[in-house]
Amino acid sequence: MKVLVINSGSSSIKFQLLDMRGEQVLASGVVERIGEDLGKISCWMHPGSSAQSRVEKVEKIADHQSGMLKVGEVLCGGQDGVVRSSEEIGAVGHRVVHGGEAFHQPTVIDEEVVAAIQANIPLAPLHNPANLDGIRVARELFPSTPQVAVFDTAFHQTIPQRAHIYALPYELYERHRVRRYGFHGTSHKFVAGECARLMGRELSTTNLITIHLGNGCSMSAVEGGCSIDTSLGMTPLEGLVMGTRSGDVDPALHSFLERAAGMNLALIDGMLNNESGLKGICGFNDMRDIHEAAGKGDERARLALEVQTYRNKKYIGAYMAVLGRVDALVFTAGIGENDPIVRERSLAGLEHLGIELDVDKNNRRYKEPGALHSGSSRVQIWVIPTNEELAIARESMSVLEETNH
Amino acid sequence: MKVLVINSGSSSIKFQLLDMRGEQVLASGVVERIGEDLGKISCWMHPGSSAQSRVEKVEKIADHQSGMLKVGEVLCGGQDGVVRSSEEIGAVGHRVVHGGEAFHQPTVIDEEVVAAIQANIPLAPLHNPANLDGIRVARELFPSTPQVAVFDTAFHQTIPQRAHIYALPYELYERHRVRRYGFHGTSHKFVAGECARLMGRELSTTNLITIHLGNGCSMSAVEGGCSIDTSLGMTPLEGLVMGTRSGDVDPALHSFLERAAGMNLALIDGMLNNESGLKGICGFNDMRDIHEAAGKGDERARLALEVQTYRNKKYIGAYMAVLGRVDALVFTAGIGENDPIVRERSLAGLEHLGIELDVDKNNRRYKEPGALHSGSSRVQIWVIPTNEELAIARESMSVLEETNH
Repeated sequence: MKVLVINSGSSSIKFQLLDMRGEQVLASGVVERIGEDLGKISCWMHPGSSAQSRVEKVEKIADHQSGMLKVGEVLCGGQDGVVRSSEEIGAVGHRVVHGGEAFHQPTVIDEEVVAAIQANIPLAPLHNPANLDGIRVARELFPSTPQVAVFDTAFHQTIPQRAHIYALPYELYERHRVRRYGFHGTSHKFVAGECARLMGRELSTTNLITIHLGNGCSMSAVEGGCSIDTSLGMTPLEGLVMGTRSGDVDPALHSFLERAAGMNLALIDGMLNNESGLKGICGFNDMRDIHEAAGKGDERARLALEVQTYRNKKYIGAYMAVLGRVDALVFTAGIGENDPIVRERSLAGLEHLGIELDVDKNNRRYKEPGALHSGSSRVQIWVIPTNEELAIARESMSVLEETNH
Repeated sequence: MKVLVINSGSSSIKFQLLDMRGEQVLASGVVERIGEDLGKISCWMHPGSSAQSRVEKVEKIADHQSGMLKVGEVLCGGQDGVVRSSEEIGAVGHRVVHGGEAFHQPTVIDEEVVAAIQANIPLAPLHNPANLDGIRVARELFPSTPQVAVFDTAFHQTIPQRAHIYALPYELYERHRVRRYGFHGTSHKFVAGECARLMGRELSTTNLITIHLGNGCSMSAVEGGCSIDTSLGMTPLEGLVMGTRSGDVDPALHSFLERAAGMNLALIDGMLNNESGLKGICGFNDMRDIHEAAGKGDERARLALEVQTYRNKKYIGAYMAVLGRVDALVFTAGIGENDPIVRERSLAGLEHLGIELDVDKNNRRYKEPGALHSGSSRVQIWVIPTNEELAIARESMSVLEETNH
């Protein structure tokens, strides 16, 4: 079966077409700057193979509907197309950010599911409407193709109350569903499964700490394949230090800033999401820029690196306490996969917890999974490249098989 | 020397007079409901001794000045008085909540110190003005007695940048001093010193996690006698689950509540400080009520207990990671000293980190320090009653000796 994976944002649509026999990527691309004067669609055909080629078009893309039409044209179009017609596509898998408490697993999309995603808009006002745009348009364009929603939050629905209820008036949970949901679930689930497989263990008896460090960052305590805690909260703002997001702060910060700096909540919220994190401390949100600046003696860049890796270390300790026995730590996503300095600093001084990095192994480049622990480390340490598109395609296919679509 | 310790709140003055030869409490009392129709002053004379007696007066107490005058009357008054005149009092030690970055240790009060405490009012708008009221009045009433400010934040001024800088725009730190300060410093310092002494170790080579669980709750990582991290932040709202305070929440909560519930920041701030924590989850903020309700099957009371002790456990793990070797955990303050269930739940499942509670020892009542760890526990576990008044008196005396007052 061929599965089209869609990640629809407010002004972009990322897409990937996979042939699930052999799990090969047929095409991988993005539609950008939807609604602006000039948009762009770019796509790799057969990436990584000897037949690889690239298509790029710059033109106005008025809305998600025309964006998705372009995707269809690129995939099915003439000599470059990777399928002859859209009927070859057996399923469309949509990344949906917030499934709230309604969705514990990927779900075939019908009117009820659309309504439930809509009902979660207050919890993800930027993401869910954009995801719904993608779903609406894809259902129009591929009316006979089953469509599946794969939720960022679903994997974390196993988190018990003790870890998901905030110490707030309980009616905020009852009335407004204020609680920890967690995100990056597809990624945490994918690398947890891969890690158990690579260790030659049953996932159901393996305890892992999965560490997703990309532009967004989160960590999860995964017990026997189930998430039992995670650092992102009701929204993707809590927890670790991210590229431009603050992670944890004193909850009295907001009223302080209102009093002391005359800021209102809209300004504060924008600042916490877009001007904070690594960027807030040192001006850069790309870790490569930070290393370069730190290497030249930029004290604030060094501080940003220290604050981020120190926070990582605290969460590793917290999840060690929560899990009891931990079999492995898994690093994934852009920084987690490619930044040996961040990994080393995050783990420095954790030898007493049985975590020992092999410095040489840590310093190698990994395109494939690799083990980084020393021979005497009680806890294994892995780098496992995440692949959210593949994970979404797999989950879409498996839910269709289960439901006999 | 006799030292009068003053803890001046917005509508109360707690006081204690200590004779530092033998560190005996001569009198211990509180002025309550200042400014209300009927106030009250109550005081134990020679508490705990065979000569103990109690004074209680109910009458209008217009302001802090008349409150402090009552304190003077009670201490020096006629047959019940514990001193003949206020001239016997060699020093007045004031608890001050927020010393900001200006104060790393107790400091003899002069105009400059008053101005610096005033400058920190934006960081502690409820506490510092009340502390300053106490200082002003005490300086008027005891003009020739040296007065010392002992700051809740001072002990934590050794916390390194990596742990005290939030991942926010750095100019918030430069302009508005937004950073982690930490509180309960006098208590953390006191029990850390006592613990090393009881263990027969040098404090300078001992690593401790001090766990202050009262109505306010905080935890500190103490390395060689210096605080290197703590759970309370810029204000006393961050971190652990407290009686009525939330501790950690998603920083996007505020804007969500504005959108979804129409709340403004003043309401949200009041809710986070006064209607959250244990009280928010289950309606009770006294742990004894919670145990009673939980015993009767109240699910929310059980949940409150679970959420609080789970959060404690995560912080213990985080500080284990930060400290490397940990020699002991110390429980203190109302809940920490008196609640074996909270201690047991907070430590459950931490055996793999070398933390093993002796259940029998844990279940005893402690008025004096006691050790709770099993024979095989790598990390010792102690209950040490905190004594902030004694700590303030000691620190006041020692700063006067150092500065030859």
